[in-house]
Amino acid sequence: MNEFELIRRYFTRPAGGAVLGVGDDAAILRPTPGCDLHVSVDMLVEGRHFFADVEPEALGHKTLAVNLSDMAAMGAAPRWVVLSLALPAMDEAWAAGFSRGFFALAERYGVDVIGGDTTRGPLTLSVTVGGETPRGQALRRAAARVGDDVWVSGELGLGAMAVRSRLGKIAPLPDGLREAAWRKLEYPEPRIALGLALLPLAHAAADVSDGLLSDLGHIAAASQTAVEVWADALPSHPLAEAAREQWLDCLAAGGDDYELAFTAPAGRRAQIEACAETAGCRLSRIGRIAAGQGVSLLDGAGNIIQLESTGYDHFK
Amino acid sequence: MNEFELIRRYFTRPAGGAVLGVGDDAAILRPTPGCDLHVSVDMLVEGRHFFADVEPEALGHKTLAVNLSDMAAMGAAPRWVVLSLALPAMDEAWAAGFSRGFFALAERYGVDVIGGDTTRGPLTLSVTVGGETPRGQALRRAAARVGDDVWVSGELGLGAMAVRSRLGKIAPLPDGLREAAWRKLEYPEPRIALGLALLPLAHAAADVSDGLLSDLGHIAAASQTAVEVWADALPSHPLAEAAREQWLDCLAAGGDDYELAFTAPAGRRAQIEACAETAGCRLSRIGRIAAGQGVSLLDGAGNIIQLESTGYDHFK
Repeated sequence: MNEFELIRRYFTRPAGGAVLGVGDDAAILRPTPGCDLHVSVDMLVEGRHFFADVEPEALGHKTLAVNLSDMAAMGAAPRWVVLSLALPAMDEAWAAGFSRGFFALAERYGVDVIGGDTTRGPLTLSVTVGGETPRGQALRRAAARVGDDVWVSGELGLGAMAVRSRLGKIAPLPDGLREAAWRKLEYPEPRIALGLALLPLAHAAADVSDGLLSDLGHIAAASQTAVEVWADALPSHPLAEAAREQWLDCLAAGGDDYELAFTAPAGRRAQIEACAETAGCRLSRIGRIAAGQGVSLLDGAGNIIQLESTGYDHFK
Repeated sequence: MNEFELIRRYFTRPAGGAVLGVGDDAAILRPTPGCDLHVSVDMLVEGRHFFADVEPEALGHKTLAVNLSDMAAMGAAPRWVVLSLALPAMDEAWAAGFSRGFFALAERYGVDVIGGDTTRGPLTLSVTVGGETPRGQALRRAAARVGDDVWVSGELGLGAMAVRSRLGKIAPLPDGLREAAWRKLEYPEPRIALGLALLPLAHAAADVSDGLLSDLGHIAAASQTAVEVWADALPSHPLAEAAREQWLDCLAAGGDDYELAFTAPAGRRAQIEACAETAGCRLSRIGRIAAGQGVSLLDGAGNIIQLESTGYDHFK
């Protein structure tokens, strides 16, 4: 099997939303009139973003999910992706599994694979995703306002728990929590429906990928405000509740969550809470936007908690 | 210097054509009304697409150039790119050189860098490029018609000569030819102006990246026609003319040319020739589209020449 056969067999599916999909020098798309176009890219490298023994199907899911998560964070409807892929060798079983996981998620959200590139090299995946919002309505990091509530979706810290236990940095996870943590690490669910539901309600949003405090730091910096986060309010898995303190740095700074953190006016609390049902995920009010700068993690008495690290830096 | 400082210092420039560039979960763009959007991706891996000792500035240029070449092949005006970058270590000198080469070319064509991703990993670069054509007018591989002339821009084979001599597969290149070959390998010039000029004139087009015969094969397959290529007409560097036969496989199947191969009706020859001046590059009529299928390389007597390989396959 050569490069072109691999692409044809595993990575070419009908791209109904495109004028022209895979197979020319470039794809051709017709943007929706009156919409803004959103574009984002995420690259995943073996040994850094995923373990070498990850199931190809899980990797296919996650490679797309982390990119869709960026669309969710803008309140955008994802439309298309291009995928570039460096593979150590021609491995048909790998390609079959990877493409199964990738396309299962793509089809669920109506996302077309419109192009790509395949080469030999150390296992590396790069996806560029495009999506649309009605003109001028995107959720931007710079849009937080003093007095806003700070919210986060789902449960935090599970992905980090899986990574840390696998690396032997923490004790093995108890039954139940282990499965939940691995499920979250390998099959994160992009919060697309939530992002769309928040479009008319929220001010600023970001997805939680590097760690909650780090990602809220981007909102604080872009909005020129301060963010206060209440440690006791951070949503954790029920099986992690009993040892909240032990898990605090996973919850607040672990990364690999792919949840949405967002801000919204206090007057919209009921509407936000209603979104939890529409979007099928838990929503927790975890803090507020204040005048000032930076992100503070506060305990129940309002004292600042210092963590060793607030998030992930690839070059530390 | 951490990841975010690196991005800010070397990869964040004003993106005048975007509503929002680097710094949020995704960029925001306003597509031009009445235009189609073109999207393409190319990934470059150390040791495969470039030598480990390449100058970072040359690599920055080439990484963008090979992607702009795909836009040229559609007749599209390139508008924006996103760049994902795996680096073995934080290397500020490398980032400075790479970004210098990348942005010098981007600014020359008015292309905005609107987003990216930086991670640690084996040196790998992936660029997604977006461009626009007036609706319905793109140059597609499937548009060749029986009776069309086949044309190619510039000179062929130089990039392949540089690679083969560096790998010791052929004798060292003579003075003059060596410099030209290396210049072409490291600083290919995307044929953007030519693509735009051809929009109302040409039928099908493809860029020559894997090797002329291989890339024309995509036009033949997509158009359900045959392509005849005249070996004697393939444009070579003046210093390679004396030994045309020796260089034939570089000319016809070497790859790394980033020239445009295109087809156009015979009645437009004068207009095509005028494009050479507009676009500032040589144009050569090298064959014709016939009924049938596949690509044939013909000698002066009309006999088929068999080459060992017609182009590059990453997994061979």
